[in-house]
Amino acid sequence: MSSEDHRHDEGRMRRIEAFSDGVFAIAITLLIIEIAVPHLENGRDLEDALADLWPSYGAYALSFVMIGIYWANHHSFFGHFRRLDHFFLLLNVFFLMCIAFLPFPTAVLGEHLRHDSERQVAVGFYAFGLLLPAFGWLSVWLYANARKLVIERLARAYVRGLTVQYLISNACYATAILLSFWSAWAALGLCVGLTLLYLLPPRRPVYAD
Amino acid sequence: MSSEDHRHDEGRMRRIEAFSDGVFAIAITLLIIEIAVPHLENGRDLEDALADLWPSYGAYALSFVMIGIYWANHHSFFGHFRRLDHFFLLLNVFFLMCIAFLPFPTAVLGEHLRHDSERQVAVGFYAFGLLLPAFGWLSVWLYANARKLVIERLARAYVRGLTVQYLISNACYATAILLSFWSAWAALGLCVGLTLLYLLPPRRPVYAD
Amino acid sequence: MSSEDHRHDEGRMRRIEAFSDGVFAIAITLLIIEIAVPHLENGRDLEDALADLWPSYGAYALSFVMIGIYWANHHSFFGHFRRLDHFFLLLNVFFLMCIAFLPFPTAVLGEHLRHDSERQVAVGFYAFGLLLPAFGWLSVWLYANARKLVIERLARAYVRGLTVQYLISNACYATAILLSFWSAWAALGLCVGLTLLYLLPPRRPVYAD
Amino acid sequence: MSSEDHRHDEGRMRRIEAFSDGVFAIAITLLIIEIAVPHLENGRDLEDALADLWPSYGAYALSFVMIGIYWANHHSFFGHFRRLDHFFLLLNVFFLMCIAFLPFPTAVLGEHLRHDSERQVAVGFYAFGLLLPAFGWLSVWLYANARKLVIERLARAYVRGLTVQYLISNACYATAILLSFWSAWAALGLCVGLTLLYLLPPRRPVYAD
Repeated sequence: MSSEDHRHDEGRMRRIEAFSDGVFAIAITLLIIEIAVPHLENGRDLEDALADLWPSYGAYALSFVMIGIYWANHHSFFGHFRRLDHFFLLLNVFFLMCIAFLPFPTAVLGEHLRHDSERQVAVGFYAFGLLLPAFGWLSVWLYANARKLVIERLARAYVRGLTVQYLISNACYATAILLSFWSAWAALGLCVGLTLLYLLPPRRPVYAD
Repeated sequence: MSSEDHRHDEGRMRRIEAFSDGVFAIAITLLIIEIAVPHLENGRDLEDALADLWPSYGAYALSFVMIGIYWANHHSFFGHFRRLDHFFLLLNVFFLMCIAFLPFPTAVLGEHLRHDSERQVAVGFYAFGLLLPAFGWLSVWLYANARKLVIERLARAYVRGLTVQYLISNACYATAILLSFWSAWAALGLCVGLTLLYLLPPRRPVYAD
Repeated sequence: MSSEDHRHDEGRMRRIEAFSDGVFAIAITLLIIEIAVPHLENGRDLEDALADLWPSYGAYALSFVMIGIYWANHHSFFGHFRRLDHFFLLLNVFFLMCIAFLPFPTAVLGEHLRHDSERQVAVGFYAFGLLLPAFGWLSVWLYANARKLVIERLARAYVRGLTVQYLISNACYATAILLSFWSAWAALGLCVGLTLLYLLPPRRPVYAD
Repeated sequence: MSSEDHRHDEGRMRRIEAFSDGVFAIAITLLIIEIAVPHLENGRDLEDALADLWPSYGAYALSFVMIGIYWANHHSFFGHFRRLDHFFLLLNVFFLMCIAFLPFPTAVLGEHLRHDSERQVAVGFYAFGLLLPAFGWLSVWLYANARKLVIERLARAYVRGLTVQYLISNACYATAILLSFWSAWAALGLCVGLTLLYLLPPRRPVYAD
């Protein structure tokens, strides 16, 4: 690979990162748009109406933190790749499609969590909405490994560790979907717990000697 | 052309690219806003209501990929131009107007595809929504060629090849509009097929010896 | 003024420009969100419903071009200033507030233009929506001149020419508002005509010898 | 701390700033989306309907200026920090979550201020919406001080002065919330007054000898 190609790839990498950062920033800020201002009917109190929106506030905070974590980790994630190809770029667009989709399940969760008959579907759909970007991220990673786009200096154990971590993350969200058929609260608890786990600082890259 | 003018043009080119990238990122992320959270009336199931939104999910994915492809190709497209003028800039604003319009036909397609009596109009309108940016892109290209804004090193056959490709693309979307009067599904299939074609890696520029 | 202060001001200037470009890109892309997907009631045709939205399409195109022109001119406008102060920054925030407001009168125009009894108010309100950013722009310019923030090399006649041009622009929009009380179409024609005028290339700065 | 770590931190700092600027620009431009175009029912006049939206215009302007001030101050705020850690980054995400939340209380204020029975709750909720980012900002500052992330050259009196200023700001918004139980207009006046205060130029950093 010539040094000109290398510089070309770096430019494209930076452009993908800037575009991704844009999508993260827009998706995270759009979350609030999905909370509708309550219109008071039948003499309902504004105070009660605003208080009744607690599931929307919770869903807003949860999804905001989730997208924030993806944003925070995306840059160091991209630091793992030394070059890219066309399909890598397409998988990144797919990953961003999953991130940009999140405001919708967030709104569904916020609006339907309070009703007993809709809670399980709402939580299951939200867990699915969290599974999507986790799956997109994993796809990018697996593809980059298969096509040797990952920088070679990285220690094998570190690379394998990341693969395992991303697989477990996908498995957990899939579990949350299944769990929602049995108990909405348990499934939601799993989603919240995973988010709290992600708040821990990410591992620093380990390089082979 | 003095070297100062040249640097001035490069700065303006970069500014247009940054602005275009911003519009791409915002339009692509706004697509989800057009999918309304289902309000359950008449005892409808949330599961059914979410499943019934499949045309909206499909339209979301299709338009996301379309805008993603425009974004991915826009940078190398701009690499073809060595300078710009005022009307070139205006045509770019026109192109962006067409990109930013796409969320609307996407929403129309998502909401009306499921009804037999509205399907043909919805698909035809969506195909029109796809024709618009293809036409804007072609206009920028034809104008740049007519005003000799294209870098001279490019091989003639390569330049002619791009012109033919952009013309065919426009013809295909126009065909999809006409096709929608006969069969909505055939027209939609053509739109999806074209999008899949665009997923192929773009041709690398060919330079004259 | 020390050279460190100068570099500090340049950094702030770049930051205001980047922020303004962001607001331009977001406001221009949000315009489409204001066009609501038609819900068909009473057996109305989708084709008719989409065709009936022509005032919304027109208002979308007009406002898109307006914001696009402001974006295109903003960079060279900022090239006129050699330093800034706190109140200059606040006036810029005021100008951006006027730009970001434009999607609202655009939506009002699109939704109410077709009704005879609402047309005059809708057009008058839209002309007011166009007057606002023109007034914000003028305020920034007059303040910068009063506080000698404008670069000194600019020819006096050129500076005076810009002042006159911005004043006339404000007067025209104010006229359009007044005109709307007499004839909505005449007022709208004036707004469209002004936009077409703005499509002409801006004057190049003229420097004193 | 090695010079490589230092450069790494600077890169992350710039990335947080760029992301924050994006969220500021998007949140500020989304404010207008929350003002719904009036649909005329029962023969209401468009002129009256647009005039009746004055609380929405006021809330729009107030929140726009507030976010604009946060944007203007954020850059020099970040100039106070010489390094960052993981929890600092998380607190910044929390601060941005509070900024991005503001369009919602703004919409609540705009829609419910005109009704006597809802005014107090609407103003109290809006004051709470202003308290949130003030609290986020204070948290970032207190944490950075506790963890010695603040540059050491800053004069102690200046650092202490900022802490006091941020604490007072939080106290004022908390007071506005309490005040709203007694008088909505007094509470709103306090919020407006604070915003006007923030329009004053921020203090320049003072360095120890």
